[in-house]
Amino acid sequence: MIIISKKDASVQKIEELYNFLDRHQLQYNSHSSNGHLVIVVNGTDLHEIKQQIMCFSAVENVIPLSKSYTLAARETRNVNTSIIINNLTIGESELIFAAGPCAVESREQIIETALFLRECGVHILRGGAFKPRTSPYSFQGLGIEALEYLAEAREKTGLAVVTEILSPEDIDIIIQYADIIQIGARNMQNFALLVKAGKSGKPILLKRGIMATVEELLLAAEYILTTGNSQVILCERGIRTFETAVRNTFDISAIPLLKHASHLPVFADPSHASGKIELIAPLAKASVAAGVNGLLIEVHKEPYNAKSDGHQSLTFQLFKKLMKDLQALYDYLKQLD
Amino acid sequence: MIIISKKDASVQKIEELYNFLDRHQLQYNSHSSNGHLVIVVNGTDLHEIKQQIMCFSAVENVIPLSKSYTLAARETRNVNTSIIINNLTIGESELIFAAGPCAVESREQIIETALFLRECGVHILRGGAFKPRTSPYSFQGLGIEALEYLAEAREKTGLAVVTEILSPEDIDIIIQYADIIQIGARNMQNFALLVKAGKSGKPILLKRGIMATVEELLLAAEYILTTGNSQVILCERGIRTFETAVRNTFDISAIPLLKHASHLPVFADPSHASGKIELIAPLAKASVAAGVNGLLIEVHKEPYNAKSDGHQSLTFQLFKKLMKDLQALYDYLKQLD
Amino acid sequence: MIIISKKDASVQKIEELYNFLDRHQLQYNSHSSNGHLVIVVNGTDLHEIKQQIMCFSAVENVIPLSKSYTLAARETRNVNTSIIINNLTIGESELIFAAGPCAVESREQIIETALFLRECGVHILRGGAFKPRTSPYSFQGLGIEALEYLAEAREKTGLAVVTEILSPEDIDIIIQYADIIQIGARNMQNFALLVKAGKSGKPILLKRGIMATVEELLLAAEYILTTGNSQVILCERGIRTFETAVRNTFDISAIPLLKHASHLPVFADPSHASGKIELIAPLAKASVAAGVNGLLIEVHKEPYNAKSDGHQSLTFQLFKKLMKDLQALYDYLKQLD
Amino acid sequence: MIIISKKDASVQKIEELYNFLDRHQLQYNSHSSNGHLVIVVNGTDLHEIKQQIMCFSAVENVIPLSKSYTLAARETRNVNTSIIINNLTIGESELIFAAGPCAVESREQIIETALFLRECGVHILRGGAFKPRTSPYSFQGLGIEALEYLAEAREKTGLAVVTEILSPEDIDIIIQYADIIQIGARNMQNFALLVKAGKSGKPILLKRGIMATVEELLLAAEYILTTGNSQVILCERGIRTFETAVRNTFDISAIPLLKHASHLPVFADPSHASGKIELIAPLAKASVAAGVNGLLIEVHKEPYNAKSDGHQSLTFQLFKKLMKDLQALYDYLKQLD
Repeated sequence: MIIISKKDASVQKIEELYNFLDRHQLQYNSHSSNGHLVIVVNGTDLHEIKQQIMCFSAVENVIPLSKSYTLAARETRNVNTSIIINNLTIGESELIFAAGPCAVESREQIIETALFLRECGVHILRGGAFKPRTSPYSFQGLGIEALEYLAEAREKTGLAVVTEILSPEDIDIIIQYADIIQIGARNMQNFALLVKAGKSGKPILLKRGIMATVEELLLAAEYILTTGNSQVILCERGIRTFETAVRNTFDISAIPLLKHASHLPVFADPSHASGKIELIAPLAKASVAAGVNGLLIEVHKEPYNAKSDGHQSLTFQLFKKLMKDLQALYDYLKQLD
Repeated sequence: MIIISKKDASVQKIEELYNFLDRHQLQYNSHSSNGHLVIVVNGTDLHEIKQQIMCFSAVENVIPLSKSYTLAARETRNVNTSIIINNLTIGESELIFAAGPCAVESREQIIETALFLRECGVHILRGGAFKPRTSPYSFQGLGIEALEYLAEAREKTGLAVVTEILSPEDIDIIIQYADIIQIGARNMQNFALLVKAGKSGKPILLKRGIMATVEELLLAAEYILTTGNSQVILCERGIRTFETAVRNTFDISAIPLLKHASHLPVFADPSHASGKIELIAPLAKASVAAGVNGLLIEVHKEPYNAKSDGHQSLTFQLFKKLMKDLQALYDYLKQLD
Repeated sequence: MIIISKKDASVQKIEELYNFLDRHQLQYNSHSSNGHLVIVVNGTDLHEIKQQIMCFSAVENVIPLSKSYTLAARETRNVNTSIIINNLTIGESELIFAAGPCAVESREQIIETALFLRECGVHILRGGAFKPRTSPYSFQGLGIEALEYLAEAREKTGLAVVTEILSPEDIDIIIQYADIIQIGARNMQNFALLVKAGKSGKPILLKRGIMATVEELLLAAEYILTTGNSQVILCERGIRTFETAVRNTFDISAIPLLKHASHLPVFADPSHASGKIELIAPLAKASVAAGVNGLLIEVHKEPYNAKSDGHQSLTFQLFKKLMKDLQALYDYLKQLD
Repeated sequence: MIIISKKDASVQKIEELYNFLDRHQLQYNSHSSNGHLVIVVNGTDLHEIKQQIMCFSAVENVIPLSKSYTLAARETRNVNTSIIINNLTIGESELIFAAGPCAVESREQIIETALFLRECGVHILRGGAFKPRTSPYSFQGLGIEALEYLAEAREKTGLAVVTEILSPEDIDIIIQYADIIQIGARNMQNFALLVKAGKSGKPILLKRGIMATVEELLLAAEYILTTGNSQVILCERGIRTFETAVRNTFDISAIPLLKHASHLPVFADPSHASGKIELIAPLAKASVAAGVNGLLIEVHKEPYNAKSDGHQSLTFQLFKKLMKDLQALYDYLKQLD
């Protein structure tokens, strides 16, 4: 780390700082420049020590020289991580499609949808059993009943199933049914949940929080990776900004940034990002152009009868056309490189 | 609710919408204005129905006529909620001080601090046992050991104890030790945790998420209130914006907005908002001037030895002076009204 | 417009509001729903009247029924606007490339660059003569000298020239040299400048402010359109958010939103959005996939010798490859539709 | 400045960087730490050089060691700047009140308002002659006519007059009438206007842009200061964030930050920040508690007849009570210190 002193720091105050560094057996070199003392400290940065140094009145700033995340960093592991679920491989040469309704609403709905999606060539069936809703008065999902329907749909179609977990207490029941556990945007920094889901050993789809930086998303992934579970998919789904024309601002830059910083597969969810049907196709195409490994898209047979998120769900017909276009675009771009 | 049609909506599409409203037995009146059809629907808005209506292609917008939260609304209950813990009353005429270190680091530390704070006139001792940290490599708290030290500090001083819960699974152990359960900013929309904490019947200090609107904070409180637990304290602690000169932008307007919209007590946490020692005094004074019921302030005997948040912790000496000023300011403002 | 009363509005206060509407000869129908009075007012909304109605204590909210912009709206004119400059047509079937250095630094630099860009097939040469710089100590541009070099480059290459205007006072000199006048992000709401540039009759490249909503961008365009000048190109270049990994968050959704709301051509500037060389290619491709009419890209022969923005300028070699890919991608996508 | 190399930078690439530094005759010391080379460069940072260094592929980051602003910095001039206009002194021990309508609407209106404000003890009369409006269809101000009314009001009351300039071309006419020139939030980075207004030698009230950092506000002030005009008042008026409950989020932290970083007087404008009458009093009190030198408050005799901003204008009666409270609060706080 680099410590930059205040301009008016006294010799005595600098000495207190040196004593602290010595006490912690840190080695360093110092140079003054432009009125500041610049202290270059050797070795890996320790977050705790860094914070303590910030408390010294002589200190203006501390610049870290270590990445805050290690296991998630491409710097550490320069091979793309692949996730294998039966005969499905995520993170390699194929573009992965995960699709389905926001929430599982009935047995018929999810099975009919799954059959249609399989026919389109979709790989993963999504559907919420436990729904995180801003209002306690909104539909909270069918719970275990939904998990059973999802499992039946999987049996009938061979699609892998991804569903969201809301509480560490549900982990045992969810891993009985899901192939991939989703951690939603609101829970990206629910550290107890990250650790519990990580320990299950299941692949995890980790959505970026609407208030999270790219670095914080990678640190959330790091929580899972430290449990020994390396099967993490990162998912961009829009961030909260001042713009009110969309529900969230889809951060297209996050896709190349994540691909560059990490070896983990990166998905995009254009449905939640925009909250508007007419934006899903352009955002999905843009995501493919920007380099995603997969897409998460909400599909509903009758959006106007959906119990949640109907306004951002594609009809079967629209989805079919879009998926075909995305696949064509992906194949074309691959041969461009 | 009010439904506004698109300008180019066809008669047929409008009819489909009317059929939907009729099918759900909703009563309404329609008028056209400026090319739009405006449909005023009677009765309480149902979130689900509202979302479904948004899916009709004839619809441009739906304007709700019901507040999204009910139990938390002053409109529903126009008497300030008081929270009573032994001989402490929160939400009435007294300015409440909650203070202590970010994390409990040792028995000696928390007991010495508690004794000092009692002497200053502080009401509540804060101290983290389970710490939510952005990085898995940061200090995560002493856990149950910390809870025991907090309980001992309470016994020695009579101060009430507030500490943060991170996982629904910890609720049983935490309610044995804490007088007030804190739900941190990162968990404001951890709905499983809100419900679990709510059901414990304990008073809850609910911190605003850094990317949560005032309305979402009230909806999070509503989750707790629907469990039958009405003892919720709302806490402003800064939101995430583009400004990098501070850790978070303290949203001073939220204080009068919350007091106006809700009957629940409102606290402010100037330490977490700014992340800078020199801003704590002006932000705390501003909070009192804006009408808070209480303040949450980080205090540490030796900030440069703190395991977390030392850079935003006041020393004993600074805290003592600030608390005296805040109390004087509060008393003066009260007699101004 | 629709006026929604407060729940506790008294009969007397509602009467005052009705009197105001009558005094302004507005026609309306009222219905009560869920405790609110809903007044649907006929006719086009007047901004001034709307604001005055907001002042009545009986009023909770006013919902407009007119678009705030008219001339820029596709609703008003459902034919794409084309801008013709000599044998260049912007806004039709061709993908337009505008490229060049951030600032004109010397005669040699701009002429060499222009020759290279023409060879690549670029349509428009960009180069700053007057530079808006956050710091008064940064390079402010060569001024008129730069304009002369740009004109010479145009003569030698046939490229159209776009350059930025900073002050209404410079309009006479700039229109002597530029084919397209750029209004930069910082001046998007410099209304005096918008009007002056509009009145020149020249095509205008209007960049979105980093703090501007899509609607405000369209209102800024409306300022130009009201001068009788319909040749406006809208340009997305990133907005300011909490994310610090990029200079600005490129708002990819703005592209389809603008194409949908307006008939004006839409460009994207991936260089300014990200501030990072490695993001330019993915953002440019994503922009094409999302439907832009053109791209604005910074190119510099020797980025490390650039007087500004070198860190986000492509070298000649990188640009050549990218342009080829973008053109191929555009052509492929066109035949997909 | 400090240059931090990438971890994988090659010896050859580092050498290119050293050559660049040598060519620019920069002196430096280097140390490696944690795989990075850290180069501490002596002397004042040059923005241009810094940007060029960012372009070297060996470079990960450049940390400046000079403040980006100099003349505005308290570091440079540790004496509070006072601005004297006749017998009014801004920036010293008195709390300054600037009040008046958003826009001058008629001779009668502004004179009646001015007489009332003088009676209350207000120091400065505000009133817009040229109005920056998001929509070209909104009231744009009475222009020169308004300036004449303001001058007449000044003559009758002795109040100083502040009014906003929108275009450099208006400077000659405005300085004939105004005692203080206001640069509005939308023009904070209108550099041509800053320089022109600065050169007039008149005191300038510089409002923070809604998307400007505290540092950018100080750099905008620096533009004025470099013209030799040191009479600048900084004004916080709210920033744009995701929160929609208020028009802008009032950044209360900016007040102590600006007072700490700069010697210039700091005002607050609670009217524009919130856009809501009921928030003006708490925000104004909070601003005083946080240390402002003055307040800018919108007052209108009949808000519901105002041509702009009526919904955020206090009535005469409300203003009178608030001003009395603010003065009392200010006096009380002063004796606390």
